[in-house]
Amino acid sequence: MHRGIYPGRFQPFHLGHLNVVKWGLERLDELVILIGSAQESHTLSNPFTAGERIEMIRRAMREEGISGDRYYLVPIPDILMNNVWAYHVKMYVPSFEAVIARNPLVLRLFKEAGSEILVPPSFNREKYNSTLIRKYMITGEEWEGLVPSEVSSFIKSIKGDERLREIVGTDKR
Amino acid sequence: MHRGIYPGRFQPFHLGHLNVVKWGLERLDELVILIGSAQESHTLSNPFTAGERIEMIRRAMREEGISGDRYYLVPIPDILMNNVWAYHVKMYVPSFEAVIARNPLVLRLFKEAGSEILVPPSFNREKYNSTLIRKYMITGEEWEGLVPSEVSSFIKSIKGDERLREIVGTDKR
Amino acid sequence: MHRGIYPGRFQPFHLGHLNVVKWGLERLDELVILIGSAQESHTLSNPFTAGERIEMIRRAMREEGISGDRYYLVPIPDILMNNVWAYHVKMYVPSFEAVIARNPLVLRLFKEAGSEILVPPSFNREKYNSTLIRKYMITGEEWEGLVPSEVSSFIKSIKGDERLREIVGTDKR
Amino acid sequence: MHRGIYPGRFQPFHLGHLNVVKWGLERLDELVILIGSAQESHTLSNPFTAGERIEMIRRAMREEGISGDRYYLVPIPDILMNNVWAYHVKMYVPSFEAVIARNPLVLRLFKEAGSEILVPPSFNREKYNSTLIRKYMITGEEWEGLVPSEVSSFIKSIKGDERLREIVGTDKR
Amino acid sequence: MHRGIYPGRFQPFHLGHLNVVKWGLERLDELVILIGSAQESHTLSNPFTAGERIEMIRRAMREEGISGDRYYLVPIPDILMNNVWAYHVKMYVPSFEAVIARNPLVLRLFKEAGSEILVPPSFNREKYNSTLIRKYMITGEEWEGLVPSEVSSFIKSIKGDERLREIVGTDKR
Amino acid sequence: MHRGIYPGRFQPFHLGHLNVVKWGLERLDELVILIGSAQESHTLSNPFTAGERIEMIRRAMREEGISGDRYYLVPIPDILMNNVWAYHVKMYVPSFEAVIARNPLVLRLFKEAGSEILVPPSFNREKYNSTLIRKYMITGEEWEGLVPSEVSSFIKSIKGDERLREIVGTDKR
Repeated sequence: MHRGIYPGRFQPFHLGHLNVVKWGLERLDELVILIGSAQESHTLSNPFTAGERIEMIRRAMREEGISGDRYYLVPIPDILMNNVWAYHVKMYVPSFEAVIARNPLVLRLFKEAGSEILVPPSFNREKYNSTLIRKYMITGEEWEGLVPSEVSSFIKSIKGDERLREIVGTDKR
Repeated sequence: MHRGIYPGRFQPFHLGHLNVVKWGLERLDELVILIGSAQESHTLSNPFTAGERIEMIRRAMREEGISGDRYYLVPIPDILMNNVWAYHVKMYVPSFEAVIARNPLVLRLFKEAGSEILVPPSFNREKYNSTLIRKYMITGEEWEGLVPSEVSSFIKSIKGDERLREIVGTDKR
Repeated sequence: MHRGIYPGRFQPFHLGHLNVVKWGLERLDELVILIGSAQESHTLSNPFTAGERIEMIRRAMREEGISGDRYYLVPIPDILMNNVWAYHVKMYVPSFEAVIARNPLVLRLFKEAGSEILVPPSFNREKYNSTLIRKYMITGEEWEGLVPSEVSSFIKSIKGDERLREIVGTDKR
Repeated sequence: MHRGIYPGRFQPFHLGHLNVVKWGLERLDELVILIGSAQESHTLSNPFTAGERIEMIRRAMREEGISGDRYYLVPIPDILMNNVWAYHVKMYVPSFEAVIARNPLVLRLFKEAGSEILVPPSFNREKYNSTLIRKYMITGEEWEGLVPSEVSSFIKSIKGDERLREIVGTDKR
Repeated sequence: MHRGIYPGRFQPFHLGHLNVVKWGLERLDELVILIGSAQESHTLSNPFTAGERIEMIRRAMREEGISGDRYYLVPIPDILMNNVWAYHVKMYVPSFEAVIARNPLVLRLFKEAGSEILVPPSFNREKYNSTLIRKYMITGEEWEGLVPSEVSSFIKSIKGDERLREIVGTDKR
Repeated sequence: MHRGIYPGRFQPFHLGHLNVVKWGLERLDELVILIGSAQESHTLSNPFTAGERIEMIRRAMREEGISGDRYYLVPIPDILMNNVWAYHVKMYVPSFEAVIARNPLVLRLFKEAGSEILVPPSFNREKYNSTLIRKYMITGEEWEGLVPSEVSSFIKSIKGDERLREIVGTDKR
């Protein structure tokens, strides 16, 4: 059994993320999709709850015909101690050998913790980019084509784009 | 879609838990198995990490032929504020209508939060009981027959029973 | 202006507490009633939320004709660092000179922090005792006469005694 | 009984805040003034402790002849989980139906939690503005006329404006 | 350079602890004395602050003629996640190879984290025992001979034994 | 015995810091070097763990011939409550009279807590500046001459400058 983790915040889960998942599943038996900053929601950077992110990813997987037996969806809250973070992750997920990541800090921390590193191709990162997608949700530009269609219909069903527009301009609670 | 959650600590996941899961899946479209006290491990009451509990439940499900598309495995850390707990859960999991529980506090908190309550039959609770199983692991009595066979072989593969015996007598760190 | 604080958990606020408040208001210009363990509720030791405790004390005060301008009701969460606790309190309340307490640890910590100590008479502590009152709520014995009548009618209006009976037997979530 | 809450940081409490309180008390029987970010003090954005804010508001209320029986002053620490925040508030305060707020995030979170929303008029928000008042305290411009006179004399008695000037330029502890 | 850590709570530091330190310094170049539960004080199990424990150990070392260049005194707060604890320790102290411990949980956690284990002889554990020493302080029995003489004079100078007697009978704050 | 504390983050410990330590040791019998933000590491502002900072300071002290009996190295995590911070420090370190600091907030908080203040000369603060040194590590400019030679060789031995370059560009985990 060759298992790996794929950490991200998935705010929201887009087609770039989906490509990384598929790329990972070609190389690994099982993939743990690790949903970071699980305690956050209703902010400009983190509009969706962990539960909403679990649901949007599950729907995207079904749409793609990826069986629930190939992956895990694990939310994890922030711990605010970088040197301990990789071990915090290890506590929350089934044992794994590989880490899929491009973020230099994530790579560094898992390298120090002895994990195998898999760097995926960039899959058009300029286009498929969560920060940009959230910006389009606010300005009203087309964002639906950048995410799996099940994700865009889910976000609309919970009025997630409206939520984002509503909290724009909130300086600080 | 009728979705429910089933909260527990699953230290370890035993045949009583499995019966509740099956009972729930007959009544619901999807079940979120909520793994509580996720931050705990290596104690007499909570020997296994959240990740180990995820893995043992997944194996038990496969053994039973239950598809990964019917359920979610979500670890959640303690929050230490009972009045907020049910809403903390709602943040971590996909939206749900029903809660499967027998614990009076859990029932009370979700009732106050407006959830539908499903009380499962007891499924021989005196026999299938996590506290008892952990005790048998320590004393060396037969415990393997009380859990799904995939769970007992997983626990042995990680030497989980040995871990428990080793930390007996640890007063306090 | 001579101001003092009176720390307690007030689970629930009873006639002994009320006597201490009156005793304090004879000696001080203003009294801060400090509601400790504010994050706790729905347990056998701490059944009521901070908000419920604020409300029951306010009602008891009105019943006694004590003006809201003579006292403050301030909830404070636990901090779990005894050596810092008295300073944590100082941050949460208007400046004060005196502390009303009988608990030896509370006395010790405020003495070290330089406060004046006022030890009230015991006011029949064996009878007016929160632990005992919670026990009577569970067993169904008469408890209503041990608290101000506004407190007993408030607790009944929120079914607080029923809540306590319901969570009895809850081992641990 | 129609009760509402009015959340804010009140750094410091100014004439705009006072107008909202009066506006609220015309519409409600009782008002809970909720003092947020209670754990903060001695920073440029949050110079005053929760206790100092309680005291300045109490003094302003007395100056206005508003009885302590019409309102509550409740400090509450941050919880850093937006989706749970409205329920955290509910735990800390007496039960309420209405929320007075203009901040879009606060409105959103309480709407989702089922509260009635009261949006007050802006009361010359460009002029009565905490950020601006703190800036004037630092630069030495006239700020005293923007707050109730009891607030300005209280701040001067604790040398609060001097504190603010002293910590200017503190990059980070 | 061969460096090791010696974790303990040292409530108080006694002659058994001193013997372990000497035993360790014969085997290692440098020793990190790790003062656990650093956030605790003023309780029956943890009467002394981290700072007081640092000071008593330093005095005992000087009394023994052990140079400050051979050891480190590092306080560390609890983290409440056993699976991460050993890595939390690694973050707080200079890099080390060996761990001196007898507590089974501590041994287990550091073994899993890849450290070398050194189990010291018991050094008359029945006699030199912190729990017993704290009990003697309360009952007034002779305890001074069980700790280094610099420790007993330090504890008396801060009236530490009196503090312990004072907080006896404090049920719970 | 005249003892003082010198708080800082020491990211990294440079020649300016060393000059302050020497200046302090001329005025005090013992100095507690307090290593703040102990929980942080692997960020652009806080690249080194508390343990690495302890080790680099110890090496610098040895290089200077300063005996380990003259000073203490105490890491302390952030507490996020300014009004309580000085008392949190007092809990972690041996009792002290004086504080060496230039940061206005630190000065203010310890003045309010009753400590004696020692303001050291600036020792060429424009040149010996941690922010600048971290910047040079990233850009590859000469930084080695700005820190004690034992510190530069230690940082190189753990590849600390490489770590910093590696995490540049990490937006946010």
